[in-house]
Amino acid sequence: MKGFVFHGPGQASWQDVADPGIKEPTDAIVKVDAVTICGTDLHILKGDVPEVRPGTVLGHEAVGEIVEVAGDVRTVRPGDRVLVSCITSCGRCRFCRDGSYGQCRGGGGWILGHLVDGTQAEYVRVPCADLSVHPLPAAVRSEDAVLLADIFPTAYEVGVLNGHVRPGDTVAIVGAGPIGLAAVVTARMFSPQRIIAVDLAPARLEAAHRLGADAVADAHEAPGELVADLTDGLGADVVIEAVGVPESFELCTRMVRPGGRVANVGVHGRPATLHLEDLWIKNVTITTGLVDTHSTPTLLRMAAAGRLPTGQLVTHTFPLDHMEEAYDVFSKAGETGALKVVLGEKQHAEVAVPAA
Amino acid sequence: MKGFVFHGPGQASWQDVADPGIKEPTDAIVKVDAVTICGTDLHILKGDVPEVRPGTVLGHEAVGEIVEVAGDVRTVRPGDRVLVSCITSCGRCRFCRDGSYGQCRGGGGWILGHLVDGTQAEYVRVPCADLSVHPLPAAVRSEDAVLLADIFPTAYEVGVLNGHVRPGDTVAIVGAGPIGLAAVVTARMFSPQRIIAVDLAPARLEAAHRLGADAVADAHEAPGELVADLTDGLGADVVIEAVGVPESFELCTRMVRPGGRVANVGVHGRPATLHLEDLWIKNVTITTGLVDTHSTPTLLRMAAAGRLPTGQLVTHTFPLDHMEEAYDVFSKAGETGALKVVLGEKQHAEVAVPAA
Amino acid sequence: MKGFVFHGPGQASWQDVADPGIKEPTDAIVKVDAVTICGTDLHILKGDVPEVRPGTVLGHEAVGEIVEVAGDVRTVRPGDRVLVSCITSCGRCRFCRDGSYGQCRGGGGWILGHLVDGTQAEYVRVPCADLSVHPLPAAVRSEDAVLLADIFPTAYEVGVLNGHVRPGDTVAIVGAGPIGLAAVVTARMFSPQRIIAVDLAPARLEAAHRLGADAVADAHEAPGELVADLTDGLGADVVIEAVGVPESFELCTRMVRPGGRVANVGVHGRPATLHLEDLWIKNVTITTGLVDTHSTPTLLRMAAAGRLPTGQLVTHTFPLDHMEEAYDVFSKAGETGALKVVLGEKQHAEVAVPAA
Amino acid sequence: MKGFVFHGPGQASWQDVADPGIKEPTDAIVKVDAVTICGTDLHILKGDVPEVRPGTVLGHEAVGEIVEVAGDVRTVRPGDRVLVSCITSCGRCRFCRDGSYGQCRGGGGWILGHLVDGTQAEYVRVPCADLSVHPLPAAVRSEDAVLLADIFPTAYEVGVLNGHVRPGDTVAIVGAGPIGLAAVVTARMFSPQRIIAVDLAPARLEAAHRLGADAVADAHEAPGELVADLTDGLGADVVIEAVGVPESFELCTRMVRPGGRVANVGVHGRPATLHLEDLWIKNVTITTGLVDTHSTPTLLRMAAAGRLPTGQLVTHTFPLDHMEEAYDVFSKAGETGALKVVLGEKQHAEVAVPAA
Repeated sequence: MKGFVFHGPGQASWQDVADPGIKEPTDAIVKVDAVTICGTDLHILKGDVPEVRPGTVLGHEAVGEIVEVAGDVRTVRPGDRVLVSCITSCGRCRFCRDGSYGQCRGGGGWILGHLVDGTQAEYVRVPCADLSVHPLPAAVRSEDAVLLADIFPTAYEVGVLNGHVRPGDTVAIVGAGPIGLAAVVTARMFSPQRIIAVDLAPARLEAAHRLGADAVADAHEAPGELVADLTDGLGADVVIEAVGVPESFELCTRMVRPGGRVANVGVHGRPATLHLEDLWIKNVTITTGLVDTHSTPTLLRMAAAGRLPTGQLVTHTFPLDHMEEAYDVFSKAGETGALKVVLGEKQHAEVAVPAA
Repeated sequence: MKGFVFHGPGQASWQDVADPGIKEPTDAIVKVDAVTICGTDLHILKGDVPEVRPGTVLGHEAVGEIVEVAGDVRTVRPGDRVLVSCITSCGRCRFCRDGSYGQCRGGGGWILGHLVDGTQAEYVRVPCADLSVHPLPAAVRSEDAVLLADIFPTAYEVGVLNGHVRPGDTVAIVGAGPIGLAAVVTARMFSPQRIIAVDLAPARLEAAHRLGADAVADAHEAPGELVADLTDGLGADVVIEAVGVPESFELCTRMVRPGGRVANVGVHGRPATLHLEDLWIKNVTITTGLVDTHSTPTLLRMAAAGRLPTGQLVTHTFPLDHMEEAYDVFSKAGETGALKVVLGEKQHAEVAVPAA
Repeated sequence: MKGFVFHGPGQASWQDVADPGIKEPTDAIVKVDAVTICGTDLHILKGDVPEVRPGTVLGHEAVGEIVEVAGDVRTVRPGDRVLVSCITSCGRCRFCRDGSYGQCRGGGGWILGHLVDGTQAEYVRVPCADLSVHPLPAAVRSEDAVLLADIFPTAYEVGVLNGHVRPGDTVAIVGAGPIGLAAVVTARMFSPQRIIAVDLAPARLEAAHRLGADAVADAHEAPGELVADLTDGLGADVVIEAVGVPESFELCTRMVRPGGRVANVGVHGRPATLHLEDLWIKNVTITTGLVDTHSTPTLLRMAAAGRLPTGQLVTHTFPLDHMEEAYDVFSKAGETGALKVVLGEKQHAEVAVPAA
Repeated sequence: MKGFVFHGPGQASWQDVADPGIKEPTDAIVKVDAVTICGTDLHILKGDVPEVRPGTVLGHEAVGEIVEVAGDVRTVRPGDRVLVSCITSCGRCRFCRDGSYGQCRGGGGWILGHLVDGTQAEYVRVPCADLSVHPLPAAVRSEDAVLLADIFPTAYEVGVLNGHVRPGDTVAIVGAGPIGLAAVVTARMFSPQRIIAVDLAPARLEAAHRLGADAVADAHEAPGELVADLTDGLGADVVIEAVGVPESFELCTRMVRPGGRVANVGVHGRPATLHLEDLWIKNVTITTGLVDTHSTPTLLRMAAAGRLPTGQLVTHTFPLDHMEEAYDVFSKAGETGALKVVLGEKQHAEVAVPAA
């Protein structure tokens, strides 16, 4: 088959690679119908994730059809259309028993396209299939569903649920890239009074507005003051960090009200300064986390009911074998305006015009 | 009357001062029976809390008898023996309505011995008396009860409750001064599997052990490794910071397990480094907070039932007019072994031998 | 002034009555701008609520303007436009400190139009004003706001919050009278997958559909089967009882899934049968409750932001002095189609056509 | 091998039966070291549980040694000493993913000694072994551990956790049989102010007192008044029903305070009357449930740390082949004073004298 293979920093190609086969009694083989590219994939390509060995097929998000299952797979069978989660769950360790699949100690967690071959290929072996794939309602299109493999549960669990967004809240979301935008969409599920999106790029602020942000602020122009003005000086009830740099995190801790919450979603490479001399007295809660994808069945039900407009984040689509072109477009988001790109058997190369 | 008056950095004296009188319809005047000295009082004396004006009577913890109430005080009356909380609650602002009295926006919060005259005196005016004093069960001695004015609700709310200590947990408490020791005592109310206390001073570690810590660790000797060894390398479920310096906070964030909680109780004067490059993926929750004292009625019930051995933290007692001597003993804890000192009308000057 | 005075079972009239005056230092006098009639008022008229003494002015919901405050009222002043809550809170008892204002032991709870003169009058004395009235944002019209005095917080707190409605849930609401309809509206704030409304009256089911129910079921025609069909036989995640008769409650306990919740909102006059022989093994949670109105500030923020279409429940409006006519229309809801009637200084007698 | 085989109502015998063998890739075979008898087993013998087919080996609680595992068992291996849980978990259905193993839809739930052969035998096949057995710390004796298979997690999860016992609470426990006594022990893990045990049998009340109840009440003598007296007329914060008859449940709903919780643990055969005419206004929460055993790892840690005195409930021990005698003693608890009986390879026939 064909797959997108990492060959070391800066090098990867869509090429022939051996077909995956069953290795464990809980494996399934999935024929890939749609995949997407994650910011993490770009980090791998840059060499920032050294545990990815050359020769690995990348990708941890997919929709496809089960073509084979091993002997102890019970909940899906060949022919089933499924979502492949970015997180694999052994289902047996103490973390999996608590629904903390992202912290799996039994061989799961984030492994696809990281420690084992991933989804950016024609076929993928999915370990622990019963807990790591989700049967797809027919009502959900593949190009919408594939965003439920990672980005939507990440924004929802690590941002919105960790942040305890509640009806009537003021929610500030710092960073309006794909994750921040998915946080805008899923925060609305709890009916906050207002959502304030902060970013540097006017196009992304416009996207945030279109997806439901009530106010937007340029990160260069004192976004903390906007939040203060809208909240009688108190600050936001919930602040979601969706960038991953120290400056952004520190801005979040300044924008939160006493008694409020800062939910970090961003992937950080450097430490931040925590101003405990101000925060010790403020009753602030700060959370971090890798997605567990325990919410995926809920989000799938919402999507099937037409209540989760995931597809609005898709700006570009490509056939699967245009993988290298898709990486190029996604990696130059500043020029191309890419939010999420989706590749698939049934996709044509096109630029989506997001619905107003 | 006599009171302990702050005269600027390094200067304070037990001296004549005007008797307090009713100013607001919700005021009560309390004749002081027992007071204690808080680490915060030492900070004020050093000049670290500039909003305390010279001329202010210090102290925010007391037990005493109501001698006068204004017209709109309904729940206590002259003759009642009460605990004066370190936190005053207006009862009307949004924070007080949520039980977040420490964040009161209606004139309360921490004001006694800070913004208005405090409790280290023969009499004290208590604003918003209905919500800021607690009738005392006869079964609770004044020298035990006075520790419920601040230190015990602080350790319990900001440490144990914010940390969500649960049965079976491993709890690490960094800092075994009075607050850390009160955290040891109140953490036990949730039946953790083990409590590990960390400090530099052998005498404090010994006190921690006596009060219920299962293991103790010298802060100089890799306490993180002890925690890791006891938890199969995972880390503690809950870590409570009870020191207030960056190094201690950072140690806490290294000792917590994935999915665990760090509850900061320490009062910090400088920022700490938050290692988001390690923590972003760990599902960690960090909390800060000033005490609200919403738990005081619960703690009083526990004390009345003989289930909260607060008095074990009292190492020295003095008559009220030995205030200056008491400050001296308390401020030289390294030499005197002082944990908490209690002053009162019925107290003699003595060094308590804590029960084994 | 004029007020609507109860004279014993079946007898009441809009008549001259003494103007209310300040009695306690926490009282406020409110000039009534808009009131509504509650099903409970009809129960009082029938004689079902014997503690209401003849001579009492009825009504426990109003919007109006503060015209006088006593000496210890701090958060509102004459000229302020306010919502008068159906629940009065002393703010000092253990229940009020927990936000359980409906269970107030300090003289509050439901007292207006019950134990003291109420709001169906030109003026009303509101005890404990700081905690029992809410300043009104200018953006909220009186005829919309008055539904936030009782019916909306009741449906939201006792139905939706007690029922823990969550994104993706199936919610069944039994009873589509005003409370049930308010539950439909407020349940949507948590983005359930679907809301199923059950009632006997086609007109009410139609109203439920218009307000956001995804499916409706005639109570005569096996509504439990509809719920089972929609949920693969499991039952609803949350069932809200909004009728108040044993048959309805028992239906709710049959429609709930294992692990689900039944939130009783209905006012019951007779016991129900609890089928513990079926339920003991089902992990079911059943809740009851009188409204506390702790959510009123949140709901007001939602209304001010245009996100709570309370006015859609108003079918009839009248000038204040048409009180007797309004009672007549409201009490004959089966004929008149009345959901909520609003009376006020600025209202004309009209039948609203609810927005589609 | 030998096993205790049900032959229809009133008939069962310790007899030869075929050795169990592996059937599924997730099975394990356990050599039984200790078992106990549950009240449910007596119900089966009476014919109250018709789905138990004649020929079934009874018993759903055991401690033993793994002697064989099938190909997909990963967390235990032959030689491991394990606790066999009364609940089997498939680990894959929506209920198991939520930790609601008792409601398993994937072939688990309560099946041992019910739908498949159970533990009262020399060997037992345990399906879904990874999630249904727990490795035993060496520090926990088999006769203590076996009570963690059912009775202790039942009392803890369905009684104490569902009842949300909190520090300072008044907890009433109605029924001081084995489950009620286990509730006394595990309620103490949350430091309630007081536990009040209610029963008809003086010997059981004495046992309750010995295990930590602060007050005991004869069920014939107005226990509700005792609770009211101790709580200023309010009622208990938490009431745990551990009997299973309508009268007992109704007593519980009368003893609970406004805002309190009734946690039903009893197995009921008949409906109860729910006095909604009193309860609708009281903010009461009622819960039911079958045990999930999600707490078993926590309880095992507590037991290993010496903090869960399970063995104090064991009144009689027998060798395994005295099964019929043990049933006789357990079924005549009124005469024999039996609380829990334990049978095992290393047990002698004796009557334990519970520690004071």
